[in-house]
Amino acid sequence: MRNQRIVLASRPTGFPTHENFRLEETSLPSLAEGEVRIRHHFLSLDPYMRGRMSEGKSYAEPQALGETMIGGTVGDVVESRHPRFAVGDHVVGMGGWQCFSTVQGDGELHKIDTSVIPMSAYLGAVGMPGVTAWYGLNKICAPQAGETVCVDAASGAVGSVAGQLAKLAGCHVVGIAGGAEKCRYVTEILGFDACIDYRQHADHRSLGQALKAAAPNGIDAHFENVGGVLLDAVMSRMNAHGRIAVCGMISGYNGEPIPMALPQLILVQRLKVQGFIVSEHMAHWPEALRELAGHVAAGRIRYRETIAVGLENAPAAFFDLLSGRSFGKQLVKLV
Amino acid sequence: MRNQRIVLASRPTGFPTHENFRLEETSLPSLAEGEVRIRHHFLSLDPYMRGRMSEGKSYAEPQALGETMIGGTVGDVVESRHPRFAVGDHVVGMGGWQCFSTVQGDGELHKIDTSVIPMSAYLGAVGMPGVTAWYGLNKICAPQAGETVCVDAASGAVGSVAGQLAKLAGCHVVGIAGGAEKCRYVTEILGFDACIDYRQHADHRSLGQALKAAAPNGIDAHFENVGGVLLDAVMSRMNAHGRIAVCGMISGYNGEPIPMALPQLILVQRLKVQGFIVSEHMAHWPEALRELAGHVAAGRIRYRETIAVGLENAPAAFFDLLSGRSFGKQLVKLV
Repeated sequence: MRNQRIVLASRPTGFPTHENFRLEETSLPSLAEGEVRIRHHFLSLDPYMRGRMSEGKSYAEPQALGETMIGGTVGDVVESRHPRFAVGDHVVGMGGWQCFSTVQGDGELHKIDTSVIPMSAYLGAVGMPGVTAWYGLNKICAPQAGETVCVDAASGAVGSVAGQLAKLAGCHVVGIAGGAEKCRYVTEILGFDACIDYRQHADHRSLGQALKAAAPNGIDAHFENVGGVLLDAVMSRMNAHGRIAVCGMISGYNGEPIPMALPQLILVQRLKVQGFIVSEHMAHWPEALRELAGHVAAGRIRYRETIAVGLENAPAAFFDLLSGRSFGKQLVKLV
Repeated sequence: MRNQRIVLASRPTGFPTHENFRLEETSLPSLAEGEVRIRHHFLSLDPYMRGRMSEGKSYAEPQALGETMIGGTVGDVVESRHPRFAVGDHVVGMGGWQCFSTVQGDGELHKIDTSVIPMSAYLGAVGMPGVTAWYGLNKICAPQAGETVCVDAASGAVGSVAGQLAKLAGCHVVGIAGGAEKCRYVTEILGFDACIDYRQHADHRSLGQALKAAAPNGIDAHFENVGGVLLDAVMSRMNAHGRIAVCGMISGYNGEPIPMALPQLILVQRLKVQGFIVSEHMAHWPEALRELAGHVAAGRIRYRETIAVGLENAPAAFFDLLSGRSFGKQLVKLV
């Protein structure tokens, strides 16, 4: 049996290109005691992967050159030498950009129940992106019912969950997204109170005016995925004692300067601006996943997926994700 | 009996000038029931006053045109129609830029004990600036013994207390100040472990290198009074999960743009950046003042004052404060 995988061939300068990736065929060795082999159904593509491709200072070790790109995966156990896993089990783990992974059963491999929740959702609303939204919203934004919450990349895997959780918490929720179609989805399907198409606004002042109209009482909490001009605009509308959870700054992931125009607002409005990485808060995952699974199963949290087919198409799909062409959660279907 | 006062004559654009102030003589009316009259010994000059002179959005109402400039004062009660205050009592309050104030005894007027602590200290280390340092350091920076704490405007009324409190908490403390004389004072008299003269550094990269040498283990908590290039440099050296208390951004008080160069560090290093205003945390004042008074009385917290003499010299002293020419706490002596 042969495996296909994509390795990091070179580090990008600026926006990544196909040359940064290499598709390889490898053989699958026989399992050692304690190991499990998984055939991947879906690979998750996420913005954090761009950070790992660079060598700069970050919260994680850079992705090693020549090694399989890291990434979340769901699939079936096809072979097991670990007592907790049996052939046919559905599992979620960090299998990477490949068709099969071979991992320690004692590691970060979890069985999932696909009877009510589709397998792919464990890479989205009931997976890392969902927990990211849950943690940032509940532990940093901590909105009270009646407050106004803003979320950018609002149709994305994380933003869509953050905004819906804020709605469930009784907040007035304003999204920011790119394009009329995404904005319509955010209000009509996800149920946000308003959504602003940032592409219609040339600078943070114009975007700030749109936010003023959509959030007439100002913004009490903001969930930040983008940074740059979007963050500037939101900050200009923050109320006193506002909270900003910094989950991502995708506008700067390719090295573009993204200065914060008016940091003095942190003082003037006594804001709390806090960055976080969901993997540092593992203690909250069981509670978050339980809650998210309940919401998804009951239809209270909805989501959308963009699915590329075939491992060889993962790089192009990743470029779509980074440039905002993906709609909702970007996945790669492998079987 | 006549009073002299300084009123706001016009709002500054950019750095304030003498034209923005007007010295007036007024008569002192007879006291109403419940009122107290104070003869001021010292007027406090503080950076926040610059903010009040402008009309823009801020955390406080702008200073009204034609009205006495606000400001903290210490002095003696010279007349009282309030049962809690007697002629001769030493008091601290918000008497404003004038020789006498007439205030409600039930308002924010407090008796002070000058037997151990000099009267002027109640406008500095044992007053609003001291409590500001105490709150930001203890409630936002929250440093552990052994951590590295950075403080800018380190020889100033607030920074000097913040750094000394951090030393008392067992931290490695690095100051930033303007000029060799202030830096020498910060290390030799205040006892900081190191002090960097920001005037020797052309940009945030150079300053960052100096911080790297002075704080070889990185910076865990920072007390921000200045903003701009100084904040950029400190952020570049912050450790994971660092805390930044934003107390002031004096580099931008006259309308200069002070963009934050690398806000992505908030994410990469999972920083908490939080602004605060000490007047919103009145519940902590008694505890803070008690602790600060103990430290000052025992010589564990030291401070320096720059004293202008005569109300008419208050504007020039205020300009010195804003431009960094003051050394330590800037006061105006009135009698």
